[in-house]
Amino acid sequence: MKITEIADFLAGKLIANDDTEILRVAAIDTAQKGEITFIEKAETLFNTNASCIIVPQNFDIKVSFPLICVENPKLAFAKIAAKLHSPELRSGRHETAIIASHQQDIRADFIGAFVSIGENCNLSEGTRIYENVKIGNGTKIGRNTIIYPNCVIYDSVSIGDNCVIHAGAVIGADGFGFVRDGAEGYVKFPQIGTIFIEDNVEIGANTCIDRGALGETRIGAGTKIDNLVQIAHNVRIGKRVVIAAQTGISGSTIIEDDCVIGGQVGMGDHATVKSGAVIGSQAGVLPGKIVRSGVWWGTPVQPLDQYKRQNAMIKGLERLRNEVSELKRQIAELLKK
Amino acid sequence: MKITEIADFLAGKLIANDDTEILRVAAIDTAQKGEITFIEKAETLFNTNASCIIVPQNFDIKVSFPLICVENPKLAFAKIAAKLHSPELRSGRHETAIIASHQQDIRADFIGAFVSIGENCNLSEGTRIYENVKIGNGTKIGRNTIIYPNCVIYDSVSIGDNCVIHAGAVIGADGFGFVRDGAEGYVKFPQIGTIFIEDNVEIGANTCIDRGALGETRIGAGTKIDNLVQIAHNVRIGKRVVIAAQTGISGSTIIEDDCVIGGQVGMGDHATVKSGAVIGSQAGVLPGKIVRSGVWWGTPVQPLDQYKRQNAMIKGLERLRNEVSELKRQIAELLKK
Amino acid sequence: MKITEIADFLAGKLIANDDTEILRVAAIDTAQKGEITFIEKAETLFNTNASCIIVPQNFDIKVSFPLICVENPKLAFAKIAAKLHSPELRSGRHETAIIASHQQDIRADFIGAFVSIGENCNLSEGTRIYENVKIGNGTKIGRNTIIYPNCVIYDSVSIGDNCVIHAGAVIGADGFGFVRDGAEGYVKFPQIGTIFIEDNVEIGANTCIDRGALGETRIGAGTKIDNLVQIAHNVRIGKRVVIAAQTGISGSTIIEDDCVIGGQVGMGDHATVKSGAVIGSQAGVLPGKIVRSGVWWGTPVQPLDQYKRQNAMIKGLERLRNEVSELKRQIAELLKK
Repeated sequence: MKITEIADFLAGKLIANDDTEILRVAAIDTAQKGEITFIEKAETLFNTNASCIIVPQNFDIKVSFPLICVENPKLAFAKIAAKLHSPELRSGRHETAIIASHQQDIRADFIGAFVSIGENCNLSEGTRIYENVKIGNGTKIGRNTIIYPNCVIYDSVSIGDNCVIHAGAVIGADGFGFVRDGAEGYVKFPQIGTIFIEDNVEIGANTCIDRGALGETRIGAGTKIDNLVQIAHNVRIGKRVVIAAQTGISGSTIIEDDCVIGGQVGMGDHATVKSGAVIGSQAGVLPGKIVRSGVWWGTPVQPLDQYKRQNAMIKGLERLRNEVSELKRQIAELLKK
Repeated sequence: MKITEIADFLAGKLIANDDTEILRVAAIDTAQKGEITFIEKAETLFNTNASCIIVPQNFDIKVSFPLICVENPKLAFAKIAAKLHSPELRSGRHETAIIASHQQDIRADFIGAFVSIGENCNLSEGTRIYENVKIGNGTKIGRNTIIYPNCVIYDSVSIGDNCVIHAGAVIGADGFGFVRDGAEGYVKFPQIGTIFIEDNVEIGANTCIDRGALGETRIGAGTKIDNLVQIAHNVRIGKRVVIAAQTGISGSTIIEDDCVIGGQVGMGDHATVKSGAVIGSQAGVLPGKIVRSGVWWGTPVQPLDQYKRQNAMIKGLERLRNEVSELKRQIAELLKK
Repeated sequence: MKITEIADFLAGKLIANDDTEILRVAAIDTAQKGEITFIEKAETLFNTNASCIIVPQNFDIKVSFPLICVENPKLAFAKIAAKLHSPELRSGRHETAIIASHQQDIRADFIGAFVSIGENCNLSEGTRIYENVKIGNGTKIGRNTIIYPNCVIYDSVSIGDNCVIHAGAVIGADGFGFVRDGAEGYVKFPQIGTIFIEDNVEIGANTCIDRGALGETRIGAGTKIDNLVQIAHNVRIGKRVVIAAQTGISGSTIIEDDCVIGGQVGMGDHATVKSGAVIGSQAGVLPGKIVRSGVWWGTPVQPLDQYKRQNAMIKGLERLRNEVSELKRQIAELLKK
């Protein structure tokens, strides 16, 4: 793409006297000729070999290379990167793939080697199933979804359009529910529900999302989930939620739209995280807790301000103890008189 | 099954004047005709389209639909669900499965596509090995065990009867043991032990259980392990233990019978958790620690009562500091006089 | 190997009057004839059926069985174990393996069943690729590296010599980076960088290492990583670092040489852990934090001494509160007078 075309595409203001062909995106410190980069603040600009830089709108440093001014340079960079680096679109159906004969509609553009697809599945156009993936019976996958190698999709799972599921993810395993039967041990509570993954969801490598026990587990449209996350049965996650790596969400917990959950967070069952809440990494949410909008931190989770104040208090404990010792000494003296 | 048959099977008291055929279990709020549901407490009853409800024995509300009274409705529901929803029993040996020629006894009922089974294995009747599973040499699997797709069972692992191993689990990888050799870095300590998984064990998706270094790693009968759990070399877990998701147990730690371990718990090496102990989610157990029976919480782990008192103390720190300030002021005044 | 040969190999002092053939290593309590074991301290010696014991140099107890005295018995034991228990070296190329036709150089000694190898890969001598592994395009793997079953190596990853990657590990999935686009939700930040894994690295089962966003993710030579670890995009880990299970390291964080990181540690992004630092299990490192050499513990991470003192303070809170109550009482009395 030529620089002028990129500026048009980004609806940015072009400050340039050349119109080089741009081939790739790159970081500012490694960018070379033919590459476009970005800075988020004018102060972070330094000399670069990039052929073009996306800069913020208030940018007023005189430079000798082409600039495109936009409101949100990082977002513009992400958009142009998606344009310049469209993923390789593999197509065809590998001869080793095993596709059960009772099918509803298998229109996927690519089915890789050693894939197994169960009965009564429905896979729409543009969808790509990579090597060694197992898809259970009665599963429905929308359009332009990519399932990377070695994922396992159990029976009766529903996945929307434009999703990306990274390698090794397991969608639809039994939830973890057992009923104690005295000295006999545990009897499995039925795990016969299902999973709905809505459109534009990304799921990280080796993440596990369990099927509902009786009802459904649901991941809302536009939600992004990192690697090694655990999502238990009957969890309902809203739209445009972000969940970082290694977080675990217990059964029936609800996370409303637009929340941001850090890494290694643990949530008890039947908790509710209200729309727009932000929960810091390693936080712990007790079962049944309602976490309101705002920024939350710590175990048990509390508002960030309160967490910081509490941490400062704990750090000040030694001084407090010394003060109390001094008071004891003074009072002992007063009492002696 | 007819309602009368179900009541018989559950040894429950039937209060009914019809004998509809029951096809499925369901949650009370979504149950339809032909479905059976349950409530744990009479107060949670509400109108439902279910054809039958399992209720507690002291139930005395007059209703127009069939009831079965039992001591533990949830347990009865789990038992009837297992009866009505027996999993699909796939059978046969897929033509793509690779089974080494030196075998002891491969009587598994189902071996799926792209499975590889090493030499000298012993797989008993009723066992089902799903797609893309790799089973190493010298592995022994009992009867009616299910191994879901993409699991890896390394060499010389022993798995009992009626186990369920969910997709992506890795059983028998090397334990994490290295010896530092000065500036050279690390030399691997031998990881040549084995693993015994006893009967009726369930193992979650993408969970990892390492083989013993020199001895064995053992998972006792009836133990249930959730997803993404890490069990290190030489760990010994007793019978009927429950371990929730993302918990990690370090080398040589012992968990005795009937313990319940929450999610994201971390246990140091050579710790012992005594029979019947309950450890709350995100708790941390130090290496060598002995955790007695009772309920434990926090990092480092402590009895729940103590943890709660300590948390209350921390929350009260600001008030305590204010009290000390006021005392200082009062004493300063007293001293002035 | 005969005992004399082992003593030579370990450069140890042999105290023996027989020269039995040693077949295997074993733990002292289970060792049998033909097996060698070790003790780290003279006090831990007890009767054993082992044919030879590796002991520390200051060992001066009279025993009737052969001893080899060395400086570091555990290290010597690990070295002789590697000699006696060399792993089975599978060789050949399974007929089901799919190897793309545009190749640079595929000299791997073993390629197992249902392996898929993309285009333009380079796999050197001695390397072994186990069943169901998927290797993406443009990947380079050095000599004598073992990749266990069901691993996924994405495109353009570089792995060195003598590495071991355990089952289910995912190397090179997209990093977790998104840019918010108002009400629209998230746009993916490009994840088009790469990964360099240097020589002698071991990676645990189901561990995930993400590719760089624009630059690279790097794991230094001799580093050992346990199971279920998450390493985000652009992380740089030095040489001879040890990382225990379930630890998560956020984007662009740097861990310098010879660090030891416990299990379930969480590190924020852009943090730096200086050479030789030790971080205890379950610790939390804030984004941008610089962790200096020494031993660190807790969340937020602090020097171990300080952590212990702080914990003692917290434990003493109840007493402190009682002291303050007593002071209040005394002052109230003083004020009354």
